[in-house]
Amino acid sequence: MRLKDLAEHLGLSQTTVSRALNGYPEVNEATRLRVTETAARLGYRPNANALRLATGRAGAIGMVLRGSSEFGPHTSEFLSGVGGRLAEEEIDIIVTTVQTYQDEVAAYRRLAASQKVDAVILHSPTQHDERAKLLLQLNIPFVLHGRTDIGTPHAWLDIDNAGAMERATGHLLDLGHRRIALLNGIKDRTFAVHRERGYRDALKARGVPYDATLVSNGVFSDEVAFRTAHDLLERDPHPTAFLAGSMMTALGVFRAIRQAGLVLGKDVSMIAHDDVFPYLNADNMYPSMSTTRSSISQAGVRIAELILQILGGKPVADIHELWPVELVLRESTGPAPG
Amino acid sequence: MRLKDLAEHLGLSQTTVSRALNGYPEVNEATRLRVTETAARLGYRPNANALRLATGRAGAIGMVLRGSSEFGPHTSEFLSGVGGRLAEEEIDIIVTTVQTYQDEVAAYRRLAASQKVDAVILHSPTQHDERAKLLLQLNIPFVLHGRTDIGTPHAWLDIDNAGAMERATGHLLDLGHRRIALLNGIKDRTFAVHRERGYRDALKARGVPYDATLVSNGVFSDEVAFRTAHDLLERDPHPTAFLAGSMMTALGVFRAIRQAGLVLGKDVSMIAHDDVFPYLNADNMYPSMSTTRSSISQAGVRIAELILQILGGKPVADIHELWPVELVLRESTGPAPG
Repeated sequence: MRLKDLAEHLGLSQTTVSRALNGYPEVNEATRLRVTETAARLGYRPNANALRLATGRAGAIGMVLRGSSEFGPHTSEFLSGVGGRLAEEEIDIIVTTVQTYQDEVAAYRRLAASQKVDAVILHSPTQHDERAKLLLQLNIPFVLHGRTDIGTPHAWLDIDNAGAMERATGHLLDLGHRRIALLNGIKDRTFAVHRERGYRDALKARGVPYDATLVSNGVFSDEVAFRTAHDLLERDPHPTAFLAGSMMTALGVFRAIRQAGLVLGKDVSMIAHDDVFPYLNADNMYPSMSTTRSSISQAGVRIAELILQILGGKPVADIHELWPVELVLRESTGPAPG
Repeated sequence: MRLKDLAEHLGLSQTTVSRALNGYPEVNEATRLRVTETAARLGYRPNANALRLATGRAGAIGMVLRGSSEFGPHTSEFLSGVGGRLAEEEIDIIVTTVQTYQDEVAAYRRLAASQKVDAVILHSPTQHDERAKLLLQLNIPFVLHGRTDIGTPHAWLDIDNAGAMERATGHLLDLGHRRIALLNGIKDRTFAVHRERGYRDALKARGVPYDATLVSNGVFSDEVAFRTAHDLLERDPHPTAFLAGSMMTALGVFRAIRQAGLVLGKDVSMIAHDDVFPYLNADNMYPSMSTTRSSISQAGVRIAELILQILGGKPVADIHELWPVELVLRESTGPAPG
């Protein structure tokens, strides 16, 4: 059934029917109800589907989260940027939560088959990410937040994690620190690999040997960071500086430092990676926190923009952005003690 | 075009075609690709639409966020609960970000017309919420997170904000505090009205006069809370206790207390409302934070469950849950000084 047929059946103009179905305020409530009820009864698929047929668009982009823990502060800040940009275009975000890697793969297949989304945002890649290959196979346009090497051009946006960590580590070394603990992300993730590379490069450039016992990998949480930092601070000699992978990690390290009776910025230094959460401001911490800073919500805004460009026909091979990361020095960093 | 037609065109069984379109692993990649490409070329609408026709379901529930700031930590924790529960049913969440109230109203009309969602979660209600009336008119099933009075039965789940605040205020009064500042939420929201009611009831029960200058309303952020607490602590005499509306609020108050040279738990007491963010643990703060505690992600899990019940036919008039709130006493509360 076409809009024309529905309009004839109702004895209304196509314009009125279309407006009623699209929720324009010019149509009074009684007419709107009559139109939507009749459309539903006759199986007319309005708006989304008419639009999709007319424009070839679903009006939504997808994001799959594995494990409800992926709905954490990083994801919500990122989605606030994506959503803010897509709101201007009346494009929705379809969030699919899955429990396992296999479920995630099945979810992409379903998204492809159902044509519910025009594109997806792929995130948290590994170095050779099978999901990116799958999306290419399934012909779902996507922008990768992060980087992977799959031998085929694809759109991506990433921050310069290696460069950020090299600068942060280099700064701590210049302050005289030699035992610098790195609380890094989940081991197989590209960003964590890049961060460790930057850390090692800085050590190497200054001839400081790499000590694997100072490096840990895991999720970014206050709890995990507290335990890791607590154990490291019980050593003799203990690390004099920490590189914290996120602001949540920084909170846990901070707590371990305080519990050990040490003073942050004096006895022990710390630089944290700051994704710029509005509710956890590095400048407002006490002491204020030195950070490598890059706004994850701005990355979301830009990725939404890049998706719009792809849907507008821009070749994905031309879409790759590597953002530099600022090093912001505040009170949590100081010279290595005695 | 029906599944039958597509299967005949492809020379495959309907079962194979259906499995290919739904991403089952039993179908090999070449067949899957042939099926999905042919389906797309012939304009066959598989999965989502076939499913919707067969079951009357879209396989998604909606949530509209007004202003990208609504994508904050409360929303993401809530959605982690919703998403975790819906993942078990392969139901997606469609998040629509809008900029104004009028955009939000238009978004609900579009969701109704497009039949993209089976139900929506309405959140952050005012005391007489026009959006709830609109959803009833539009015949979109919904569960309200919070409460509103619109004179028509509808499904809701809320926490006992009045009771929580009455207990917290009562506890501080019992400790001898008389000047208790309340950092409350946005003024017209039901939860903020209920919290102020609980606060006033506790004062009244103990014969302590209400002082409007100790009560403020606004968004829950470190920054706003810092400024408010800072101004209050410059008064002479200053408040000896704070009720912080969220953990983010608590961080700002905490900072103002420290900056004023006062000691939390000794010179000034605080009880914060804790929605249980995994990355900001009240028990791990220093000093640990006394809280009124209710897990917002558990509320999300339960609301997803209630939506499934509604879709299963349970009358919405039978769905209303008021959750009690725990008072958890830790180190941030102590007797009023001198």
